[in-house]
Amino acid sequence: MKFSRLSMALNAPKRRYSTMTSSVIGNLDCQKTMMENGAKKWGFEGQTWLKATSAITVRGVLDMLMGGLNKEDSRPVIPLGHGDPSHFPSFRTAAVAENAIIDSLRSAKYNCYSPTVGVSSARGAIADYLSRGLPYTLSPDDVYLTIGCTQAIEITLAVLARPGANILLPRPGYPYYEACAANNGLEVRHFDLLPEKEWAVDLSAVETLADENTVAMVIINPGNPCGNVFSYEHLKEVAETARDLGVLLIGDEAYDNLAFGSTPYVPVRAFGSIVPVLTLGSISKRWIVPGWRLGWLVTSDPNGILRKSGVVESITGFLNISSDPATFIQAAVPQILSDTKEDFFSKIICMLRESADMCYNGVKEIPCITCPKKAEGSMSVMVKLNLSMLEDINDDIEFCVKLAEEESVIVLPGVAVGLKNWLRITFAVETSILEEGLARMKVFCQRHAKKHQVGFTD
Amino acid sequence: MKFSRLSMALNAPKRRYSTMTSSVIGNLDCQKTMMENGAKKWGFEGQTWLKATSAITVRGVLDMLMGGLNKEDSRPVIPLGHGDPSHFPSFRTAAVAENAIIDSLRSAKYNCYSPTVGVSSARGAIADYLSRGLPYTLSPDDVYLTIGCTQAIEITLAVLARPGANILLPRPGYPYYEACAANNGLEVRHFDLLPEKEWAVDLSAVETLADENTVAMVIINPGNPCGNVFSYEHLKEVAETARDLGVLLIGDEAYDNLAFGSTPYVPVRAFGSIVPVLTLGSISKRWIVPGWRLGWLVTSDPNGILRKSGVVESITGFLNISSDPATFIQAAVPQILSDTKEDFFSKIICMLRESADMCYNGVKEIPCITCPKKAEGSMSVMVKLNLSMLEDINDDIEFCVKLAEEESVIVLPGVAVGLKNWLRITFAVETSILEEGLARMKVFCQRHAKKHQVGFTD
Ligand SMILES: Cc1ncc(COP(=O)(O)O)c(C=O)c1O
Ligand SMILES: Cc1ncc(COP(=O)(O)O)c(C=O)c1O
Repeated sequence: MKFSRLSMALNAPKRRYSTMTSSVIGNLDCQKTMMENGAKKWGFEGQTWLKATSAITVRGVLDMLMGGLNKEDSRPVIPLGHGDPSHFPSFRTAAVAENAIIDSLRSAKYNCYSPTVGVSSARGAIADYLSRGLPYTLSPDDVYLTIGCTQAIEITLAVLARPGANILLPRPGYPYYEACAANNGLEVRHFDLLPEKEWAVDLSAVETLADENTVAMVIINPGNPCGNVFSYEHLKEVAETARDLGVLLIGDEAYDNLAFGSTPYVPVRAFGSIVPVLTLGSISKRWIVPGWRLGWLVTSDPNGILRKSGVVESITGFLNISSDPATFIQAAVPQILSDTKEDFFSKIICMLRESADMCYNGVKEIPCITCPKKAEGSMSVMVKLNLSMLEDINDDIEFCVKLAEEESVIVLPGVAVGLKNWLRITFAVETSILEEGLARMKVFCQRHAKKHQVGFTD
Repeated sequence: MKFSRLSMALNAPKRRYSTMTSSVIGNLDCQKTMMENGAKKWGFEGQTWLKATSAITVRGVLDMLMGGLNKEDSRPVIPLGHGDPSHFPSFRTAAVAENAIIDSLRSAKYNCYSPTVGVSSARGAIADYLSRGLPYTLSPDDVYLTIGCTQAIEITLAVLARPGANILLPRPGYPYYEACAANNGLEVRHFDLLPEKEWAVDLSAVETLADENTVAMVIINPGNPCGNVFSYEHLKEVAETARDLGVLLIGDEAYDNLAFGSTPYVPVRAFGSIVPVLTLGSISKRWIVPGWRLGWLVTSDPNGILRKSGVVESITGFLNISSDPATFIQAAVPQILSDTKEDFFSKIICMLRESADMCYNGVKEIPCITCPKKAEGSMSVMVKLNLSMLEDINDDIEFCVKLAEEESVIVLPGVAVGLKNWLRITFAVETSILEEGLARMKVFCQRHAKKHQVGFTD
């Protein structure tokens, strides 16, 4: 029941007033009758398209899996589904970051509303932070503070939407983009990330997909869900392709600087003079404080194209009618950025590297899943399900639902990030927990393996 | 120049792709030409309707007035334009509220993402807080945490919008409703608040305005901008009217409990068994911490109508794709609500009462403005401009622009809240500042008075 509801939602068209919603509206007929308490009839009803849209968020899928956990299982739940390690003692944020918030609050200067574009000291500090290593310098005016990277995505897509427009999104990707696109009537066209090429962008497909109504192309680097880190050369090719197509490049850097493999992290905005870039980011992942809701939307546009095209004015216009991050958290940003020591970052990087290794090696031991590429960045990795080896499991959703029910392990079905019959494993947890999760997955796969194949790996 | 731009924006239709935007699009022609750096042409442009929408926010108008201040004037600027007294020492929030935030942060339990509906301890505490004095009890499940009352408005209007629907808004009112309605394609119909009847709702007009496509009616109590407090009897009539029309009642209680006159404050949800009520509120005003961005959207629906009609499901669906208030701020709510002493509230109430009195008496001394009703609640009051007494001032915008330029006093033109040729004066400032502001307004009016009338009052 739960299971089929999810499949339905994931396959439903993601537009307002979609075909899916008509059946939901059917269920509301009860309200159209005469009301018992004297009212004619109630003239309101819920916006049913919202339900279809929200069903495809990662959160929605994970909630569904959590709902299916077996309460009789006394073992702890192993959460490999979402990128929020803040609960684990090893991943506690830097003390200096907490202190910066307290200093800001205690000053009593930031109980007020903030400017719609953000507190100016924070804009300046973020401009400096994001200018490091760039061939040009960002100005505080390029920086807009947002409620996490989430609101930066929301604003970007609202600003770019116009009738008939389309946007190029990676597959697999981060489904909040699809939800916001649907919400704004922006058509989505997917380009593939190629597992056999270390999750590189399929650039020839990008050229075929784009047309004169394409407004932008999104790159997530370091990559969620694949854990890849794009090389300088590849990003340059991406930027040149975007320029040739006349589309804006959006660099989602929610995981900025979380790179621990051999490919160095290069921000997309390094290519801002080739093509205008919007950088979307936050302190959520690098400082492990996703609950602080502090992010940014940054224009990288040394040639002034975004200003001329009205994009900058639209951003400020939209900010005028949007909510802001808490003012005292904004005001703490300069101190957070300046006081956090390299120690803290390198400790996190070490832990993530260790976990990514353990995850890669652990997956190798499990016959029914394969990992094409060890994670080099972010907090998750994609692994392919070899369904032919499984007896009674027909797809990734069924795999994850049964894994949650039988082993109390939460893993995200790939279809939730656009890749059916894959899984996304989040390895950013304590290593002991990861180890236990992988062990349970192995037992699970063995139990569900086709009988004649038990003991085989291919 | 600035002046006429503002008038234009205020009079512009507030719909997507309005006529106003076509001229703005005209200005973007520059981007349609061949690009110097090899790109075909840039395929993106700003969403121009956003500019028209955002121009009508209070913030936008105040920014424009601030921009016109005379930098040569060495006197301090007197800010009687916006409801944020948090900068003034007398209006500093309760120490216990600050401590609650710090305890929550220091616990390190709330650096994580929050549930989309809000942290459950906070939902429970708010349910208790808002149940006081009600004939029924709210459950934690009725409470959704939002990024200030602002996001509660945004979500409510998104949830209610459907093709052809309309909403009844008060005039004068809070223009963020109009902005969100435009953003969601929801038609606005205004009912008047009647100055000659202590700003009571013109209920007969409400009956004429509503039709089968009317989804809801908004009541702001205590009132912004009028400073009125609706009586129990009047609110009951309003609720009965809403029930008869079959429309949802939305109670905006951003200023809840800030009542200091003879009319006791009664929350709209007291009438939840007559008509389903959505309460929109926040800690912004009562605790004087608008920068903390913590609010709520609460369903008051003892008859279960909102659940049946799909409104509740739409709210949770929308929250799935929205940003949340900072988790550690949410988690501090139970302690903030339980630890704030009556002392703090009564001190604020005393100060507001004193300021409201001073404002009323001061306005009496100024011939060219009249106040129909002393404020009994909230932080502002409406006064009528007697243009016939003024020599060279033709409307409220011109009055406010010149007042800012000549006297460094910021007051909001009534047109920004829907009432042309009125002014909204925010009296929630230190009394010494209010006194100085009123004195400067008096001098200003005398300077601009028609010559034969100098010295007359009527
Ligand atoms: C690719 C990507 N972008 C954006 C976000 C949202 O980030 P934030 O928590 O800062 O809103 C996430 C969160 O997981 C993400 O993975
Ligand atoms: C009537 C009304 N509603 C809502 C709000 C927004 O409140 P918040 O600051 O909690 O977002 C305000 C703010 O001034 C207001 O006056």
